[in-house]
Amino acid sequence: MTIATTTARERMLLAKDAARQIALLDDGRKSRVLRALADAIEAAADDIVAANGEDLARGRASGLSVALQDRLTLDVGRVAALAAAVRDVAALPDPVGRVLEERILENGLQLTKIAVPFGLVGSIYEARPNVTVDIAALALRSGNAVVLRGGTAAELSNAALVRAMRGALAAEGVSPEAVQTLDEFGREGAKELMQARGIVDVLVPRGSAQLIETVVTSSSVPVIETGAGVVHVYLDESAPLDRARDIVVNAKAQRPSVCNAAETVLVHAAAANRIVAPVVEALQAAGVTVHGDETVAQLARDVVPADETDWATEYLSLDIAMRVVDDLDAALDHIRTYSTQHTESIIADDDAAIDRFLAEVDSAVVMANASTRFTDGGEFGFGAEVGISTQKLHARGPMGLRELTSSKWVVRGAGQVRG
Amino acid sequence: MTIATTTARERMLLAKDAARQIALLDDGRKSRVLRALADAIEAAADDIVAANGEDLARGRASGLSVALQDRLTLDVGRVAALAAAVRDVAALPDPVGRVLEERILENGLQLTKIAVPFGLVGSIYEARPNVTVDIAALALRSGNAVVLRGGTAAELSNAALVRAMRGALAAEGVSPEAVQTLDEFGREGAKELMQARGIVDVLVPRGSAQLIETVVTSSSVPVIETGAGVVHVYLDESAPLDRARDIVVNAKAQRPSVCNAAETVLVHAAAANRIVAPVVEALQAAGVTVHGDETVAQLARDVVPADETDWATEYLSLDIAMRVVDDLDAALDHIRTYSTQHTESIIADDDAAIDRFLAEVDSAVVMANASTRFTDGGEFGFGAEVGISTQKLHARGPMGLRELTSSKWVVRGAGQVRG
Repeated sequence: MTIATTTARERMLLAKDAARQIALLDDGRKSRVLRALADAIEAAADDIVAANGEDLARGRASGLSVALQDRLTLDVGRVAALAAAVRDVAALPDPVGRVLEERILENGLQLTKIAVPFGLVGSIYEARPNVTVDIAALALRSGNAVVLRGGTAAELSNAALVRAMRGALAAEGVSPEAVQTLDEFGREGAKELMQARGIVDVLVPRGSAQLIETVVTSSSVPVIETGAGVVHVYLDESAPLDRARDIVVNAKAQRPSVCNAAETVLVHAAAANRIVAPVVEALQAAGVTVHGDETVAQLARDVVPADETDWATEYLSLDIAMRVVDDLDAALDHIRTYSTQHTESIIADDDAAIDRFLAEVDSAVVMANASTRFTDGGEFGFGAEVGISTQKLHARGPMGLRELTSSKWVVRGAGQVRG
Repeated sequence: MTIATTTARERMLLAKDAARQIALLDDGRKSRVLRALADAIEAAADDIVAANGEDLARGRASGLSVALQDRLTLDVGRVAALAAAVRDVAALPDPVGRVLEERILENGLQLTKIAVPFGLVGSIYEARPNVTVDIAALALRSGNAVVLRGGTAAELSNAALVRAMRGALAAEGVSPEAVQTLDEFGREGAKELMQARGIVDVLVPRGSAQLIETVVTSSSVPVIETGAGVVHVYLDESAPLDRARDIVVNAKAQRPSVCNAAETVLVHAAAANRIVAPVVEALQAAGVTVHGDETVAQLARDVVPADETDWATEYLSLDIAMRVVDDLDAALDHIRTYSTQHTESIIADDDAAIDRFLAEVDSAVVMANASTRFTDGGEFGFGAEVGISTQKLHARGPMGLRELTSSKWVVRGAGQVRG
């Protein structure tokens, strides 16, 4: 642990001050700064990998799980991939300055609503050093300064990455204070970040459901919740078997550890005899354990009995829950009860069922006849993804650079006063 | 106080359930329901005025200030005005269902981002029974259910208004549970409302700075902050005297008690000799007390000495602070330090100064050569105003019906899976 020469609050104030400079950089300048950041990260690869080796040694000594060790690991290849991702962000269109609305009032006042940076973006995340670079690049590209709190497990890795980025900012004539870390302040740093309303404009937590819950309930800074996905696929009475099978297997097994992977399949009772057995077999062939209700267990082999807990579980593994429901209304009821409002998909040929499902399911993304794995900033064409918002305020669903901007009204007059 | 037959949480769950029905009402139906609401409020005017009389008697007995008594008072004329405001909201365009974005991906997926209701909107406010009706009408028009917590001082008035509105909903075949009050649960009701994350989708506090601060720091439900306005008018070196005088007087004196009224005038040092005395005299002629720094006191008569406290004060009265600053940079510094980021206006002829001010002042509304009193949903042409947001998340500046909606992505496919 390094000795902090400033307090967490002082660092945030320095970042807030630097934010003013970043907000005024033009498109070309921001792109150039980001490319310099990418170069600096690659140039510092040896330092970064060495610091990461120390984090890993400490992690192994303290019993960090193999999965978390993998997330934590940075080798030269992964550092190069981080730099490449920054270059991709550099090439994206500038979200700042877009005209969102224009109107001229009868009294002649000219109103323009334009996209402006938030100012200072905060992020609290867990042992994933890649987030350090991702969030910093996205924040800077959208004209914001950034304050990072990445957890002690990756502290030395994050410090090396931040050092490289701050060096690049300084070399480009931009205040290095625009990128700050609070890692060395431990839990106190996170707490101060969550209470920095008026200094930090928005806070984006990334990590486990527990981390997000803590931030959401403790923060007085406005939060964008990037939440868990208890994602449903509903197989309607009219669902063609091939399509149902292909989409369920893809939605679950193509990458089971992510939030847009399906966790529960609901099957219309009238389609159960036709669909349950072949879909279960296809899932099992892909290595998936099916947790089913009694009807599913009667219709297919090797089904693990499911209970209430399964309906509410985000497995993030090669497990899926399956339930037979009476009809579309029962499916909508189930989704209303257990969904985290991330993504739900209906597989059907019946337009009336599709229209009702799309209108009545209240989730960030509602789909018909597509794999839930498509809920993704990259797939949606945003070029980069800040996270997937499961709240309704400000941003909902995959967030790109635009979601890291606010707006302001610019009013031009000629001396108008109110009568 | 009436005996509650349900708990605060039960009421919120009933409202949440009713929200599903409201969300699916079409434009014409919502307008009709609102007109029925207006009729019911007028028909119940005697009941409402009688209940209000009891609230007022209690208020007078407990020493409620005359100003608060005035805010609390409902006579037949004010009830009719409330009903008329509901009819205005009924006539506004439906904000739900607007297509916000459309794209077709290379794989053929059709993406549409549409405006959807939040679901359940909560509001915490103080002794203003008009807010009970305003917020309910705005929430219903935008397809939301609403849960209200209006304070004990107006409890009987609010109850009578809610009774009338719920009766109208039931008569229109819409669940009356879509409009709920938690008034009779006292402080506990407010607390439960602020902790109802997952049930209440967004919370809009309306009232004093202290009330808003409490909600912002205590609520785990996402909040839209409608904040205080320490609003600045900056008189540049290039400011024409007539325009400066007219705008400053209008911005302060046309209605001093509202958040968009000016509270501080900053004057460029090079314009001070020319501008300070006549502007102070015009303000004084309009009944305004000027709290000035030393330079202002030297240049004009009857100036009350101002100190640091004045710069940070939202007077909401016929008082204004005035300070002479070295230049535009010093004005920007002052605004950065003391502004609540509501509205600031520059009075100038110099385009370079105007452009810098509009770009660098980080407020919800930035103006050139216009009175700050124009920051208003009605003036901006929104037809109705939910409040003026001083936060950067979701909504910034005057909020209309659109700001009471969220969005969802609708994805239509033909069996696409992710490769």
